[in-house]
Amino acid sequence: MFRILSLIIIVELMISNNINAQDQDAHTIKKIHNEVLTNGMAYQWLHTLCTKHGGRIAGSDAYLGAVNYTESQLKSLSGVKTSKQDCEASYWKRGNKEQVYIVGSDGKRKKLDALALGNSVGTPAEGLTAEVIEVQGLDEVEKLGKDKIKGKIVFFNRPMDPTHIRTFTAYGGAVDQRVYGPSKAAEYGAVAALVRSMTTSMDDFPHTGVTIYKDTLQRVPGLAISTNDAQKLSLALKKGVVNVFIKTNCKTIGMRSAPTVIGEIKGTEFPNEIILVGGHLDSWDVGQGAHDDGAGCVQAMEVLRLFNAIGYQPKRTIRCVLFSNEENGLAGGRTYAKESNDKGEFHLAALESDSGGFSPKGFSFEADTSVFKTYYKHVSQWLPLLKSYGLQFEMGGSGADISPLKSQKGLLIGLRPDSQRYFDFHHTANDLIQNVNKRELELGAAAMASLVFLIDKYGIK
Amino acid sequence: MFRILSLIIIVELMISNNINAQDQDAHTIKKIHNEVLTNGMAYQWLHTLCTKHGGRIAGSDAYLGAVNYTESQLKSLSGVKTSKQDCEASYWKRGNKEQVYIVGSDGKRKKLDALALGNSVGTPAEGLTAEVIEVQGLDEVEKLGKDKIKGKIVFFNRPMDPTHIRTFTAYGGAVDQRVYGPSKAAEYGAVAALVRSMTTSMDDFPHTGVTIYKDTLQRVPGLAISTNDAQKLSLALKKGVVNVFIKTNCKTIGMRSAPTVIGEIKGTEFPNEIILVGGHLDSWDVGQGAHDDGAGCVQAMEVLRLFNAIGYQPKRTIRCVLFSNEENGLAGGRTYAKESNDKGEFHLAALESDSGGFSPKGFSFEADTSVFKTYYKHVSQWLPLLKSYGLQFEMGGSGADISPLKSQKGLLIGLRPDSQRYFDFHHTANDLIQNVNKRELELGAAAMASLVFLIDKYGIK
Repeated sequence: MFRILSLIIIVELMISNNINAQDQDAHTIKKIHNEVLTNGMAYQWLHTLCTKHGGRIAGSDAYLGAVNYTESQLKSLSGVKTSKQDCEASYWKRGNKEQVYIVGSDGKRKKLDALALGNSVGTPAEGLTAEVIEVQGLDEVEKLGKDKIKGKIVFFNRPMDPTHIRTFTAYGGAVDQRVYGPSKAAEYGAVAALVRSMTTSMDDFPHTGVTIYKDTLQRVPGLAISTNDAQKLSLALKKGVVNVFIKTNCKTIGMRSAPTVIGEIKGTEFPNEIILVGGHLDSWDVGQGAHDDGAGCVQAMEVLRLFNAIGYQPKRTIRCVLFSNEENGLAGGRTYAKESNDKGEFHLAALESDSGGFSPKGFSFEADTSVFKTYYKHVSQWLPLLKSYGLQFEMGGSGADISPLKSQKGLLIGLRPDSQRYFDFHHTANDLIQNVNKRELELGAAAMASLVFLIDKYGIK
Repeated sequence: MFRILSLIIIVELMISNNINAQDQDAHTIKKIHNEVLTNGMAYQWLHTLCTKHGGRIAGSDAYLGAVNYTESQLKSLSGVKTSKQDCEASYWKRGNKEQVYIVGSDGKRKKLDALALGNSVGTPAEGLTAEVIEVQGLDEVEKLGKDKIKGKIVFFNRPMDPTHIRTFTAYGGAVDQRVYGPSKAAEYGAVAALVRSMTTSMDDFPHTGVTIYKDTLQRVPGLAISTNDAQKLSLALKKGVVNVFIKTNCKTIGMRSAPTVIGEIKGTEFPNEIILVGGHLDSWDVGQGAHDDGAGCVQAMEVLRLFNAIGYQPKRTIRCVLFSNEENGLAGGRTYAKESNDKGEFHLAALESDSGGFSPKGFSFEADTSVFKTYYKHVSQWLPLLKSYGLQFEMGGSGADISPLKSQKGLLIGLRPDSQRYFDFHHTANDLIQNVNKRELELGAAAMASLVFLIDKYGIK
């Protein structure tokens, strides 16, 4: 009888300890949210990053300014040790404003809003004029063949499918035209490529972004035009032959130093288990890189500040990493993973925010198949703690910069904010601080800090 | 044996029918979403409503223009019968731009960004100047008493608590100052009241909104000042005595016709069971009433259009109601409920969208306690169908316009969009069409149509 009573008491104590632990965790998560919504620094940091160091393409002076600024802010946080990781990135420069016109049979010009794609080669100095041929994708270029393509400007005009609820899925279904279109056009003898901007909005903002040439010999200029102008061009083509003039002196300058910024709080119990939080510090040269990805950087920085502010001393090493050159080469992510592997480091988890500073809706998780199920089952038990903040868990991609860490067999995580507005701003001159809502940005940082806190406290297996 | 086999077959058929029904419902909901995201009319309607009939305070010419426009658009939908429901609303007019200044001891003036509160009385024609006394709430006025308050301008400066995740909760915790502050100030002998704007943002936009006078004899002007200026005024008060000059000739003009707009699809099987979808057509006179509540109106209209477009013929009567005078009197909602009760109508459900045209996060449900549990249990079984669109269910308030229908013992529902940006725009000159994202607005309409479809198809008990 005494034994049974003891057993009951022990079980009850275990249950109540568990409830107490849950209450404590809920309390800490609430403290994180309260702190970010009252004293958050993320928005102020982002404001400076955007207005003083906007248009931070890796290798540019603006990028180096951003490196110094963010490192100095991380350094000002108590207990945070900072460093710059050397990284060489291919520096591409837009040069003069692009000129793109429909040239009428009467010689009259109709301007198209355009931006050269990142890594694109320029046109001849005097520009080029050629007949436009519209296609709906890479395969159509192949089908048409060299006879039809040669000497022309290929116009890739397959829109993003608006019926996908998550806009990134729509992006994924159309972006091959931008990434591989100019190269494919060159392969078939085209003189240039125009690409419909990657957005479901109908507006006048052209969206730049990286293009990749397969062949070092065959390279032709690639430019994005706004969706309104894509519509206009397509309509003109329905009426007959359309010639377009293109002039851009964009070019790849060569390799330049573009360091990745690191700030770290050493873990007290398991310093060799690293939990990374990060974003990428580089942005396109147009706009200010507010949502892409200034937001992710300041949110990652805020995780460290929040732990300090609420007096949480992590057991594991929390490392904030602001990667270089995500936009046109991923040199930052690759260099970081290589050095980490060389040092024999282990990233227990890596969490990237690179989907904009919008209201957080949850996280997506990925890992090596040998460990994924165990990790995912473990983290799923925390869902009740995060659900009241509107957060959900799902399987899926994490982030471009952290993906090379997958071989370390930790858990890779992506912050998933609401995606509806992202492609209004992505890679445009409109990616500005005034289009970031302070509370939405802060709640994203709080979501990240909450999950990192739980991983730090309990591990993931 | 045969019987057992038959039983198994019957059970399997039932399960497969159930699965088929679920598949069909999922398919219909997907069709609704596809339609709204490709051919949605909500944004175009809202664009016209905002740019042609902006600042639609009930009783104004702009309001009557909006009535005609929305009725004509509803009339153009196949199978929709429209009507205008007579409604008399108290028409309040802002008059000339308000003038509010801090008057320095040297006579120098520092302008404060201000808006008279709806229903406020004006100042004497020459304006008024008085010493300001800052309070944190209505109770502080009572505590200070007539001696301290008499002859002064009471400045209500308790901020919205930013730590609430849902901003409406923060609003609810502070808005008593705006609604009852001027009346309370008058009761204690003040000559006017200034109220800190209802937002967690620090900016220069004053937020108007209704104020209610308890006493017909004691009325003093009430104005909102921007949060930046509230901060400025509070700082000045910390340094010493501050006098403020206020001049406004706003006034209540009297009763005017302000009809509620109705568009209805008659149900084929249960025409006497009404499912209402609505918003309020009136807005404040500043801005364009884009989020508040043009968004709700066009979403409700879109529900009817969507049913037409996907070829769904409702069993029950679907009634789109664009209420009048929600902002400063609720005459539309009260009149509608009274007439409905007089006719012996039954609203099986009423769904209002009046929380802005942002990404939908779910619905909140309320009903008479005698029926709530049954209804809520019934609708909860549909959650799996809506979850993949990021929608959640919760208990809570529905909408001001539909709340008088509670006595009919149907289910009252509020659309719950993401609330983070709402109080950046609410009741300000900044509530403009350019601050509405097309996809977010459309997804709200699709969420509403999906739930209305399920209620129509299955009932709720």
